Amino acid sequence: MEPIVYHHTLPIQIRFNDVDKFGHVNNTVYFSFYDLGKTEYFATVYPHVDWEKNGIVVVHIDVDFLEQIYSTDHIAVQTAVTEIGTKSFRLAQQVIDTRTGVVKCVCNSVMVAFDLESHTSIALDNEWVEAINHFERRELRKEKKEKKHI
Amino acid sequence: MEPIVYHHTLPIQIRFNDVDKFGHVNNTVYFSFYDLGKTEYFATVYPHVDWEKNGIVVVHIDVDFLEQIYSTDHIAVQTAVTEIGTKSFRLAQQVIDTRTGVVKCVCNSVMVAFDLESHTSIALDNEWVEAINHFERRELRKEKKEKKHI
Amino acid sequence: MEPIVYHHTLPIQIRFNDVDKFGHVNNTVYFSFYDLGKTEYFATVYPHVDWEKNGIVVVHIDVDFLEQIYSTDHIAVQTAVTEIGTKSFRLAQQVIDTRTGVVKCVCNSVMVAFDLESHTSIALDNEWVEAINHFERRELRKEKKEKKHI
Amino acid sequence: MEPIVYHHTLPIQIRFNDVDKFGHVNNTVYFSFYDLGKTEYFATVYPHVDWEKNGIVVVHIDVDFLEQIYSTDHIAVQTAVTEIGTKSFRLAQQVIDTRTGVVKCVCNSVMVAFDLESHTSIALDNEWVEAINHFERRELRKEKKEKKHI
Repeated sequence: MEPIVYHHTLPIQIRFNDVDKFGHVNNTVYFSFYDLGKTEYFATVYPHVDWEKNGIVVVHIDVDFLEQIYSTDHIAVQTAVTEIGTKSFRLAQQVIDTRTGVVKCVCNSVMVAFDLESHTSIALDNEWVEAINHFERRELRKEKKEKKHI
Repeated sequence: MEPIVYHHTLPIQIRFNDVDKFGHVNNTVYFSFYDLGKTEYFATVYPHVDWEKNGIVVVHIDVDFLEQIYSTDHIAVQTAVTEIGTKSFRLAQQVIDTRTGVVKCVCNSVMVAFDLESHTSIALDNEWVEAINHFERRELRKEKKEKKHI
Repeated sequence: MEPIVYHHTLPIQIRFNDVDKFGHVNNTVYFSFYDLGKTEYFATVYPHVDWEKNGIVVVHIDVDFLEQIYSTDHIAVQTAVTEIGTKSFRLAQQVIDTRTGVVKCVCNSVMVAFDLESHTSIALDNEWVEAINHFERRELRKEKKEKKHI
Repeated sequence: MEPIVYHHTLPIQIRFNDVDKFGHVNNTVYFSFYDLGKTEYFATVYPHVDWEKNGIVVVHIDVDFLEQIYSTDHIAVQTAVTEIGTKSFRLAQQVIDTRTGVVKCVCNSVMVAFDLESHTSIALDNEWVEAINHFERRELRKEKKEKKHI
């Protein structure tokens, strides 16, 4: 697998009560970091999306906790879309120490476009997909990639 | 001031990450307990209210932290409406240790009825006020109390 | 793979601010539920462990979000250890709707015994392993299982 | 009462799940903002303090919620010590909109120096008090102020 190039990095402000009794940032808080990274990513890539109507829901998350995070660390969350299907796409994220470059935690998730009124999955909006491809500087749609290889 | 009699007591489930690096429940988490007590109180007293339309917003909170809370404590939040005006009312709450009866924290708040669409304060619904009075077993409206004294 | 039998079920109290602007319990909050289930599981199975000295850290989490959780749902988190190695073990958890039995979310995690002072992984305590085996009513150590099959 | 001059302003990063189902930042989250402002304030004013040994606990909080905070707002928390006693001191804080200057929420708290081992209140460290006075550019000790007026 080729390494992921991240074009989106968001510095994270650690809060006092992110730290649990073991003196490190509690694992459950990492998901707030990923959530924030994701939200900012989509707001950057495609600012016009109406999240009240067109939701995107997480259906799967996969996380490797590599290093602990302390309240004095300077961290950032990096986000990239890595693959786009018809109704779903894959997102790679990592929390890094911005001073040392050390990767603290890696997260892969599968997200599905979701009609919040009918509560059913829907096809990803084409304009939105183009915007992601443009931001990531490569073709992320599986079927398109396959065609290219022919 | 006469002591408050609480008719609503909600046991609280403490979560692992409620506890901060000092080994006690973080102060900011107490407000989640009060919020939960409040929500359950209103759901009990007047289950028919449509919170999407008729909001109640907190405009003032006053808290005395008397004792620390530890993850092994058994606690509950107690809630009572103590005074009702035209557009606002007062709420008294406390977190107690359910085994020792010790009061851990006392909270007084002022809440205002709020139209979530027009973003303006509105008169409290009369049926709702009656339900509160009934639940609290006394007349809480200021003006009604004054009339009685004449 | 054989289905997991859960011997530990902990009802979860949903808090007002667990619910995000989409009206359902925010994904990040699920991890607090799993954390709580885990903490109670270990406190039940082996109450004598000194968590200040012998920590257990999560190194991997894998989550499938199957159904949304609403504030009015009655939910519980179920926890089982499913496999034990020398320094690590696997944990299966799920959030269920206690009234319908519907599985809302499934979580698998890998945890490692960790010396909080030297910050290195350590062998799992044998007494602790026995207690888990006893609670789960089966042999969970990989090597022991392999030996049995001979 | 003279207006408070704030010499410490900390921009706050709003997180996705700070926003509740009413679409604004949940009231309980404000206290995380104040906590963070406080922590950074003390780290700035007197970086050498050993928080593991010399704790400062909140004994009273008083909050006026003036305006709602939305996820798109740019906010900061401002912090000032306003009065220093023997064992306790007063802290004023406010959340502002950094683009409009609008004050969203005002918080006053009383904090007490606390020995985390003996669990008793202790006299404030003199060097620490000097550092605060220096940072705030005025004499904050009540008794010293009174003497001056003679």
